[in-house]
Amino acid sequence: MDSPLIIAEKPKPELHNGHVTIGCLIFPRMDQIDFTGPFEVLSRVPDSSVRVMAKTLAPIRDVQGLILTPEVSIAEAPKPDVLLVPGGYGQQDLMDDEEVLSLIREQADSGRIVLSVCTGALLCGAAGILRGRQVTTHWAAWDLLPYYGAVPARSRVVVDGNLVSAAGVTAGLDGALVVASLLRGNAVAEEIQLSIEYSPQPVFHAGSPDTAPSDVVRSFLAQYEMVKVARERDARHFAHKWNTLE
Amino acid sequence: MDSPLIIAEKPKPELHNGHVTIGCLIFPRMDQIDFTGPFEVLSRVPDSSVRVMAKTLAPIRDVQGLILTPEVSIAEAPKPDVLLVPGGYGQQDLMDDEEVLSLIREQADSGRIVLSVCTGALLCGAAGILRGRQVTTHWAAWDLLPYYGAVPARSRVVVDGNLVSAAGVTAGLDGALVVASLLRGNAVAEEIQLSIEYSPQPVFHAGSPDTAPSDVVRSFLAQYEMVKVARERDARHFAHKWNTLE
Repeated sequence: MDSPLIIAEKPKPELHNGHVTIGCLIFPRMDQIDFTGPFEVLSRVPDSSVRVMAKTLAPIRDVQGLILTPEVSIAEAPKPDVLLVPGGYGQQDLMDDEEVLSLIREQADSGRIVLSVCTGALLCGAAGILRGRQVTTHWAAWDLLPYYGAVPARSRVVVDGNLVSAAGVTAGLDGALVVASLLRGNAVAEEIQLSIEYSPQPVFHAGSPDTAPSDVVRSFLAQYEMVKVARERDARHFAHKWNTLE
Repeated sequence: MDSPLIIAEKPKPELHNGHVTIGCLIFPRMDQIDFTGPFEVLSRVPDSSVRVMAKTLAPIRDVQGLILTPEVSIAEAPKPDVLLVPGGYGQQDLMDDEEVLSLIREQADSGRIVLSVCTGALLCGAAGILRGRQVTTHWAAWDLLPYYGAVPARSRVVVDGNLVSAAGVTAGLDGALVVASLLRGNAVAEEIQLSIEYSPQPVFHAGSPDTAPSDVVRSFLAQYEMVKVARERDARHFAHKWNTLE
């Protein structure tokens, strides 16, 4: 990615003075750290509460088998000040789920914050909220953003009005720190960062296709091929639905 | 931290050819990302399986309220090739828990890998396995390591024989990537890093007390005072038990 943060020339969300509620959507075959990364940060915002929400109250497993337990159903959940939309392969199964898409659409339309992580951006795309916005997502899905009417932004985190998008998987930590600063100011975000010792020093430099050895990129893409085909099919469907690529 | 990785001059764990089992200890009031960070990486090691273990099968809540569900009790769990020992405030309640301490001690004595994250190092200290080893932990607990007989190492990750220790909280991601490379070689670790887009770009530079604004460090330390006092009391207890500070 070319930059850590892009902020579009639109009004940013305003600082919150009162209690802040954070709703975290979870679903089967999601990528757990798209959620647990931002949870780590956002649950530490002073005077906040986090509600973990899903279509039903049944525990789900992430794509690698971790059990996660929701505490409220989407139908019962009050509207949160921040809605977290994670990604992962399970996102594919929700691309025509009107309950989930309405949740995202209503949050965006209300002006309250949506934080998308990784291919959570594709769910936001299916909900129609990316049109005309600068957006980032997992590097392997980045080329799909224009199908959803988005302007792809080469940045770890992008703030476009009330939509904050983070790049792939672990970028949710970076995105959540930006949301913490939008909610409560930079010093609060910095204290959270200090408490979780987020001064990362990866031993390898393979976190991006620009820096990873070419063999490693090739091996990843070979494994990803099946998912890529399915995601491209969805993207073309939505491009047609919204006339985004004419 | 001064360096991303220190490797002590001792034999490192050897590459594993066969199936690898990873046991992840969880407990009430732990810090969830000490576990979910390494889970994200280690569950992606080819031909591996992860078992989430706890004293009982009851779901637990992390220090911020996230529900985590174990799948096997410590008593029933087979000995894993890698044992993950996370930290967080709940570590305090296990410092005299012989079931947990035996688990850690037997793993270390067997030569199989122990990965400690954050103040999981203090649990390892209570188990007696830090004596004579180079170790890192959360920056706020770093000064306590000598009480447990450890040589504090200013590094994000330290490999000392079969003990791999990571600094605070989010350093578990870095530590787990090192473990992945020890198990399967660098290319495997790099492909995992690429898939989870771990090319972090924190917007703020407050992840370490060396770089955070002094007001932010002061505010954190004021909040930490109560925990610090309790941790120092434990540390003196173990220093006496093992004669480490004479």
